[in-house]
Parts: sequence; C-alpha cells; structure tokens
Amino acid sequence: MVSEIVAKAKAARAAALKLANIPTDVKNKALLEMASAIARKRREILDANMKDVEAADALVKKGKLSKAFVDRLKLSTSKIDDIVEGIKSVARLDDPVGKTLYSIELDNGLELYRVSCPIGVIGAIFESRPDALPQISSLCLKSGNAVLLKGGSEAKFSNEALFKTIAEATESAGIPEGWIQLAETREDVKEMLKCEGCIDLFVPRGSKEFVKYVQENTCIPVLGHSEGICHVYVDKAADLNKALNICFDAKVQYPAACNAVETLLVHKDIAEEFLPRIAEKYAKAGVEIRGCERTMKILQGRGAKEATEKDWATEYLDLVISIKVVDGLDDAIAHINAYGSKHTDTIVTEDKKAALKFLEMVDSSTVMHNASTRFSDGYRYGLGAEVGISTGKIHVRGPAGLESLVTYKYLLLGAGQTVGEYIGPDAKRFTHRKLQKSWDERAKNYKE
Amino acid sequence: MVSEIVAKAKAARAAALKLANIPTDVKNKALLEMASAIARKRREILDANMKDVEAADALVKKGKLSKAFVDRLKLSTSKIDDIVEGIKSVARLDDPVGKTLYSIELDNGLELYRVSCPIGVIGAIFESRPDALPQISSLCLKSGNAVLLKGGSEAKFSNEALFKTIAEATESAGIPEGWIQLAETREDVKEMLKCEGCIDLFVPRGSKEFVKYVQENTCIPVLGHSEGICHVYVDKAADLNKALNICFDAKVQYPAACNAVETLLVHKDIAEEFLPRIAEKYAKAGVEIRGCERTMKILQGRGAKEATEKDWATEYLDLVISIKVVDGLDDAIAHINAYGSKHTDTIVTEDKKAALKFLEMVDSSTVMHNASTRFSDGYRYGLGAEVGISTGKIHVRGPAGLESLVTYKYLLLGAGQTVGEYIGPDAKRFTHRKLQKSWDERAKNYKE
Repeated sequence: MVSEIVAKAKAARAAALKLANIPTDVKNKALLEMASAIARKRREILDANMKDVEAADALVKKGKLSKAFVDRLKLSTSKIDDIVEGIKSVARLDDPVGKTLYSIELDNGLELYRVSCPIGVIGAIFESRPDALPQISSLCLKSGNAVLLKGGSEAKFSNEALFKTIAEATESAGIPEGWIQLAETREDVKEMLKCEGCIDLFVPRGSKEFVKYVQENTCIPVLGHSEGICHVYVDKAADLNKALNICFDAKVQYPAACNAVETLLVHKDIAEEFLPRIAEKYAKAGVEIRGCERTMKILQGRGAKEATEKDWATEYLDLVISIKVVDGLDDAIAHINAYGSKHTDTIVTEDKKAALKFLEMVDSSTVMHNASTRFSDGYRYGLGAEVGISTGKIHVRGPAGLESLVTYKYLLLGAGQTVGEYIGPDAKRFTHRKLQKSWDERAKNYKE
Repeated sequence: MVSEIVAKAKAARAAALKLANIPTDVKNKALLEMASAIARKRREILDANMKDVEAADALVKKGKLSKAFVDRLKLSTSKIDDIVEGIKSVARLDDPVGKTLYSIELDNGLELYRVSCPIGVIGAIFESRPDALPQISSLCLKSGNAVLLKGGSEAKFSNEALFKTIAEATESAGIPEGWIQLAETREDVKEMLKCEGCIDLFVPRGSKEFVKYVQENTCIPVLGHSEGICHVYVDKAADLNKALNICFDAKVQYPAACNAVETLLVHKDIAEEFLPRIAEKYAKAGVEIRGCERTMKILQGRGAKEATEKDWATEYLDLVISIKVVDGLDDAIAHINAYGSKHTDTIVTEDKKAALKFLEMVDSSTVMHNASTRFSDGYRYGLGAEVGISTGKIHVRGPAGLESLVTYKYLLLGAGQTVGEYIGPDAKRFTHRKLQKSWDERAKNYKE
C-alpha cells in the first residue's frame, strides 16, 4: 500500500511536470490571487491560529513551551498584512525560469541551448512560524516548483487554514491541481526523507540540529543553513572608529540573526587601545564579553569572563561575544578557517594588501572589507526574496534567492544528425560556435 | 587518535586553502610538468601496472575476475600517451576560477562581487581504470581543488606509481604540498564518507550501485551519475529515414555508453511501416529486441522477445533494446517521465508543435529534437573535459565540465558601513546599481 505521504509526493510530481511550463503571467496572477485570498480570509485564518495559540498557551503554563515560542506562533492583523505584502512582492520579482544560460552551435543545423527550469518538487520543512508557509509557497510557485510542506505541529490549524486558502486560490487561477501539498504529522517527516524520486530538494528551516537531522537522514539534496559563526578581524592598520562602529553594529543591531558577529579577533598591536573602547560600548548595550587570556589582561576589572575553547565554536545568537587577541593577519585567517562556519567574515583595515589577502584566503560564503557582517542578506545583496542562507558550497552559497529553486536543462535541436558522422576518417567536425540567440527567440520558430 | 584518512583529508584541506589562490599560469605549468613526468616515468608506471595485471590474471584463472576487467586495468604505451595528451588538453582549458558572476553596488562605496572559486577538497572514488587517476587529478588541479583519491584496490600499484609521479611533479612546480592524497584500502572509503568538514564534494565513478552506496552513506554532497535509460520517440510525423539513422546510431554506435538509447517508443500510426525496417537494421548489427505486445504482433517471426515491466526500467549497456508502441505524444512523454533516468531523450518528428511539447514536457537533463542521444557529452557540447554526467538536478545537470568543480564566494567592499544606517526613519537607501566591473579589475586597486 502506498502511504499517504508517498501519494502526496507523487501528486506533487505530476503537478510539477505541468507547472514547469506555466507562463509567467499566469503564475503572477495566481500569486496575486493568493495574496487577496489570504487578505479576504483573514478572519478564518486568525481564528484557526487562535486555536493553536490556546493549545500552546496551555503548554506554556505547564512549562513545556516558552513564551517566545508562542510569540512566533501567533498571527495578528499586521502579520497577515506582511504576509500579503510579501506574496505581492514575489509576484513582482523576475521569473527565474526560461533564461538561456548558454547557447552554442555544435555544427550547422545542430544547436544546443541550456535553459533554466524548475527543480521539480521542493520538500519544505519548517518550525512553528505559520508565516513561513505562505512565504515558501509563493517562492516555489514563482519558480515553477511544486511543494510538499510540513510545518510545526503546534501550528497545525494555522497551517491548514493557510494551505487551504492558497491551494483554492491558485488552483482556480490556473495552477495545476496538486502543486501544493501539506504533510501533517511528525512521522510524515521521516517518510518525506525517503521520497527520493519524488522530492528533488529539501529546504529545511529551523535549528541547526534540525537541519543536521535532515541532512543525515536523507540522500535527497538539502539546501541547508547550519549556523553563522561570523568574525570581525580588527587589523593593526584599522581605522579604529570604523572598527568600533562595525563591531558594535555586527553584534548589537540584531544579535539573533545568523549574520551577527560571534567572535572579534583583534591585532595585538592595537589591542591595548581598541579593547577598552569597544568594551565600553558593549557594556552600555549589555553585551557580555568572553575573552582570551590576553584580552582578559587588557580588560581587567571590566567584568569580562574567560573564554573556553568551546566559545570559539559557539553561535550565541545573543548579546554575548568572544574576543581573541591575535598575532597578525595570518593568525586571524587561520582562526576563522578553523572555527568559523563559512558564513560571513570581515576585516577592518586601511591596509589594502592585508585586506586583499583576507578576501582571498578566508573560505567563507561572504568575505568583507570594512563593512558589517549584518549586510550578508539576500535582500541587501539585491537578490530579491531570500529562500535561505546556504553555508554549504554546492548548488548555491550564501544568501540564496529564487535562483536557488531552479536548475537547467539542455535542449539540442537537430535535423537528423548521428554521432557516427563525427567519428572516423571522414568525420565531420564540430564548429562549437557561440550563438547569440536565446531559446525564447529560437522557440518562436517552433510555434509558427 | 586521528585516523590516517582524517589526517590526509586535513592535509588536503590545508593545501586547498592555499591552492585556491594559485595563479592560472602556475597551475598550467604544473599540469605540463605532470604530463611530462608521466611520459618520462612511463617505464616505472608500466612495471607497476604489470604487477596489478599479473595479480588480476591470477584471479581471472580462478574465475574471480572477468577478462574485460583486466582489459580496463591494463595500461599500455598508447594508453600512457592518451593520458599525457589528456593532461595537456586540461592545461589548455579556460581557468574556471576567478570569474565575476555578478557585481552590484549596494550603495555609494559599498560594492558586492560574486566570484567563482574552487570548492575545496574533492573526494574522488573510482573503480579499476588507472587512467581515471591522472584525469580527475588534472581536472581538480586546474579548478584549484585539492583531491583525496581512492582507486580500485586491484589497481593498487598502478595508482601508487601515478600518484607519486603526479605529487612530485606538481609540488616541485609550485603547487602546495599535500594537495593530492591517496587513500589505499577499502576501509578508507567508509572513513572518507564521514569526513564532512574536510571533504566538500564526492565525485564517485563506477557502477550505479556503487554511486548509490556513496549517496546513501554520506551527508557530503555527491556529484553522481546513476544511470542512463535514454529514449528515442519516433512520432507519427517522423521522417522515417532520419528515425532509422538516429535509432541505429543511438543504439549501435557505442552501446556501452550511458547516452546510448535503451527504449524506442514508436507511434502506433507508423509502427507497421517503421518497426520491420528498424528491426532489419538491428538484426544485421546483432541487436536483440524486447517488444511490447503490439510490437511483437508487428514483428512476428523476426526473433524479438517479449518485454516485461522490468525492461522499461533497465539500462542494458549492450546490444539489446526494448520497444514499445505508444498511442501518441502524451503517452510517450508519460512513459519517459515514469521510466527514464532523466538523462537524455529525443523525439524524431517533422511536426514542430509536437517537438516543442516534447522539449518542454520531458524532465531530463537533455531533451533533443531530431538528433541522436549519443551527442549528450561534455566534449561534444563544447564544455571541454567532462568530469561526469549528472543525473541529479542540483549544482550541475547533464554533462558536467570543469565548472562543476567550482563554487563562488561573495566579496563585499566597504568604507566602514553599518546596517544600522539603513534602518529606521532616517535610513539610507540601497542603490542596487549593477556594476560593469569585474573583481579582477577591482582587485587592481588593492594591489597598488
């Protein structure tokens, strides 16, 4: 017997094959329908969410859930407005499907086009923010992918209401039936992880432990963000005012973000001057310092705690920072490549040669010179909506926009050519002449 | 205690960080040194290979290995020449590292560059063709990656001789020591699969069972080719002469290739005319036919065998073909998407609308119109050397050239900017202005 999840994944795959060729204007119209349906059914969605919130509140009283958890779970009129706005903005993005990435004539009358296309079926697994569901659904639809969703069980009623609204609105706007599917139970996740052949890519959102669990339990590719152990290195040739601003912004402006700094590395020659100044700024903002031995000596009496080996590999996501005095640039680079998470690291210096070496030698998705790590973000990078931030190196790295949800296929257009003609003593030769034409233009010839 | 493999993987990682920034001319010079060292040490390499061949011959006598296996294992003067030529041709390829893929001004004085860079450490595991070792090593070096190699244990002496020659030649030509590592035992493979954090990508070469084993036993990404179940669909509007040529070439020209056809789908309206003609051509070439019920009826008395359900999902890699009569285009597309391996499929037709639908709806890495599936190949596609053919959809799809061994990193160049300046009532605005400059040009400013 086929399980319910396998049946849903197969239905999604069948829809995906059709959805791959739905024109941009139909997808955009469906996205706008999705947005207005959510606005229109605001009351029903909030009622469903209230049921989830009440159940969660009961668990808070029993000490089984945190208050912060309920805050993330709870929808409001203004959160619904944000969801609606978010979907509309996805409709305005450029369609990533159908772009000609490479075109070449292999021989006269034998043309090859590499054209971007949807990946197929995305498995989206996320924790208990119900706003994640419309966001990932809209990104999948825009990029022509079907999606099998699994939200946190604490958001069960909210997710069902959102799912139903989105499925109805989009399917009546011409999107193939079954393109969006909802899994319900925790056991469903285990089954999803085994759906190779039906699911092409997982996009998990949640704690790093959760992402790691997904990675270790499936042979389907995972677009995964593990963690952000980001560094600021203050070089001996740093402009200390820039350094103060960047170190402060990178830690304090939004400490819960993955692109917030977790470790400062400070050149020994300027540590005596710089450390007391940044410590003072941090103290005013309530930032706890965990220092190496040399840092502790300089910051005596300022309430810093001693760092342990573990601190250098810890993502605090909080008003805590570890600080290490280093002997120089090479030492800083070696520390980052050893303890960092290949997310985002920055050097503050006026020495261009030092900056260049840092930019070249640090093995992270973004390496910066004289800028705050907090800039590392899809919207700020001009990529439009952000699907996630990949700390892996394969397929997509760093802030991942819509393009992370597409792949490509090759189209080869011939006139009956066989490979045998290109082999042997009288072999024809390949011309390998780059074509200036896009598949879009070439396809017109097929529509006449 | 750190195992030998972990130590090798760590040494490779350390070398990779340096290798990433080695200039193109140094890499090319090292490749030419690699080629001439192999030519120079031809005698030693052939002697080592002879030891492997003798051991394998003994196993052939015991019936434990096939004669074909020994043929693949055996090196010769002309195979060494091919290896040397292959390495020289990699030296001539364009360097895939350091290409500016995207550049944008986020604000005045805050510039973002996305630049291609090596992936890091490649885990290359292959079966017993010793020529695989120099080939994958040269591709890794050209793309700036360190490599941990594991060849078939039957090629132990050959691999050691090649490895030693390559390591010496390249390291004395300025490539960081330790960039190339050789694992020796079968147990080493298991340990390699656990080296996340040290190995960034696996490139396994071998049977589909072997590739599947790698995929199921690691959470490191795998650039994997599973199998090639390729189709030719002969439409009712086909030019039957083209169809005959393509069907013959795709099966007979080189049946052991993954891009050879395994199943013909024939439109019912032309089956009576076409099937006897292709069956005659196939009979002359010794191709065995496995037909569906309708095919069997048409080919009565021509020695075709009845196909079972399993035939539609079988990669024969031999002079065997399955043939199915279909009701039409939709039927053909559905069959391919259900039974194919998303490798390469072609339609033979003069009906452009049918061709377009086929090109759009078949979910394979290459979809062709009026051309033989055998064209699906990195060299023929103008991609230069072929790392492999990916039947996955993530990172790289279809024939994979050198670009499959690179990723990218973002470089953000600022003047002390903080994210706080771009938030709140007096927020500065992002300009998001596309830059025409490459990182190469911009980097000059850092070298003054």
